[in-house]
Amino acid sequence: IDEDARRRAEERQTRLTKPLGSLGQLETLATRLAGMQGSDTPRADTVHISIFAGDHGVAAEGISRFPQSVTMEMVRNFVRGGAGISVLARSIDARLEVINLGTVEETGPLEGVTDVRIGPGTANFVQGPAMDLHQLALAMNAGRHAAERARLAGTEVYLAGEMGIGNTTAAAAVACALMGAEPEELVGPGTGLDDAGVRHKAEVLRRALDLHRGHMDEPVECLRRVGGFEIAAMSGAYLACAQMGMPVLVDGFISSVSALATARICPSARDWFLFAHTSAEPGHRRVLEALSARPLLDLGMRLGEASGAATAVPLLRLACDIHGRMATFDEAQVAEAL
Amino acid sequence: IDEDARRRAEERQTRLTKPLGSLGQLETLATRLAGMQGSDTPRADTVHISIFAGDHGVAAEGISRFPQSVTMEMVRNFVRGGAGISVLARSIDARLEVINLGTVEETGPLEGVTDVRIGPGTANFVQGPAMDLHQLALAMNAGRHAAERARLAGTEVYLAGEMGIGNTTAAAAVACALMGAEPEELVGPGTGLDDAGVRHKAEVLRRALDLHRGHMDEPVECLRRVGGFEIAAMSGAYLACAQMGMPVLVDGFISSVSALATARICPSARDWFLFAHTSAEPGHRRVLEALSARPLLDLGMRLGEASGAATAVPLLRLACDIHGRMATFDEAQVAEAL
Repeated sequence: IDEDARRRAEERQTRLTKPLGSLGQLETLATRLAGMQGSDTPRADTVHISIFAGDHGVAAEGISRFPQSVTMEMVRNFVRGGAGISVLARSIDARLEVINLGTVEETGPLEGVTDVRIGPGTANFVQGPAMDLHQLALAMNAGRHAAERARLAGTEVYLAGEMGIGNTTAAAAVACALMGAEPEELVGPGTGLDDAGVRHKAEVLRRALDLHRGHMDEPVECLRRVGGFEIAAMSGAYLACAQMGMPVLVDGFISSVSALATARICPSARDWFLFAHTSAEPGHRRVLEALSARPLLDLGMRLGEASGAATAVPLLRLACDIHGRMATFDEAQVAEAL
Repeated sequence: IDEDARRRAEERQTRLTKPLGSLGQLETLATRLAGMQGSDTPRADTVHISIFAGDHGVAAEGISRFPQSVTMEMVRNFVRGGAGISVLARSIDARLEVINLGTVEETGPLEGVTDVRIGPGTANFVQGPAMDLHQLALAMNAGRHAAERARLAGTEVYLAGEMGIGNTTAAAAVACALMGAEPEELVGPGTGLDDAGVRHKAEVLRRALDLHRGHMDEPVECLRRVGGFEIAAMSGAYLACAQMGMPVLVDGFISSVSALATARICPSARDWFLFAHTSAEPGHRRVLEALSARPLLDLGMRLGEASGAATAVPLLRLACDIHGRMATFDEAQVAEAL
């Protein structure tokens, strides 16, 4: 973080023709981006969205209302333009890349999908680790490579999202392990479980945590044992962003769990994270607290796919426009406070 | 409100490729706009912003940190492009109109300002009514005319904002009268008073409410006795919007007080209001409660000038894009929930 650029930005905010602080988080967004980008004119025009897709062995435990085939069906929907994030990416003029890390169902080559399938989903982590070490490395590197491609393409703000039937279960497992929390604190309805479904999901989580207990002191090992391909990939992407100095706009529950794992692997990575929204998935608030995050939006969204992050992108752009384009008291010949 | 169009929109939301409800307020925004616009393809592309400016006699009581000359200086800043709302209007491609209802300082004709000066500010409402009946009618009609011009220009969503040194005091007075609240419940720092300043402002408010007590049963009379030119104009504009069927995106504390007065004058007008944000001005939450409003943003903004409403416009547009452009489960051949 370029602390000089950040201080210059803060000083500029005091001279713009408005009461100091009266634009709230739009002011701090601009000053944080100025620090991250080392620039007096922070920008969020060039936005890259990586969607990481993968299936989960734990789906065999009946923890989702949707069949696993939906993961692959949604991958097709992403690139054909019909999914929520497809529409949002076009509307905000962001580049959208879909990375298939391992769906159960294969397709042939699909225009617009980067195919790095590691396997037909992870293993069921109620019976053993979700991944072996090689698979974990492949997943984290796939994320790193996505972030590097985005950087090379001149990305000013990076977004990651996910698709994977069962992944709120995996994300809750990782979060429980990282935070020392109980399943009941972090489990939620995901795509729409009823109360009995949520109780069953908590029970599955408890069995998983019991199985892996004593082996999850390291965040990377948590990702391997109870994470998922897409969750590990997002952690790899976020780590790379922090190392390259590329601002990240974090999406919802699952992305935030990846961000938390990243911050546990490398605490200073946290400085590169902006948080888009508070998800309706109940565990998200706890994960945000663990990250000391203050998100921009709270619209009751819980779709994933980077949809909450994409929705917050216009706020970053408006913050940058205000910072760069408002007149100062001197320029506008407006009297300051008495 | 076209209830058939709203129901069709709600039905369409159930068929889009996402778990039902997973886009939260983006879904309800689209369905409410569909009902207001009587359209299967609600839109928020053409946005009109009216900024109403006026000065306040109560400024003589020392209730603001800024001199009254700032009202006129900011009017100039609006049309020269240097103010917060000037930048935001350009960024969201909205039409911005500035209406001078009565600043203390005169200018000659100013390119881009509609000059309908009623007087050099209102009278000091600690000593008598802020306006006479003729002045109130002029102010409310100026608002009505602004909304009518916007309608003729094809506006899909209408925003009003205000500028006037002292107007958080007038807005708090109107809100106290409408809600039967005490000054301490609705008073706040405005452009940046310290604690002693806020206490003094509450004392001024109490003197005003004592003077006018027993004469403020009618909302229009509240506006006349303790309101302001721009507060009355926004109420006139909002009334006209409801009558013409034009959706309104309400800004912050002062705009919401105008909206509350409008809803007290004509309760069904409330159906045409969307609420953009919760202001950092503490009284706003109470006023929003009185309107049963659930705003979109809570970013700690407190600038006025329609800045909060302008910041929320991209959310309306994204909601409309999602509603119109996402694929249905059938179209995308994605399996629905089991």
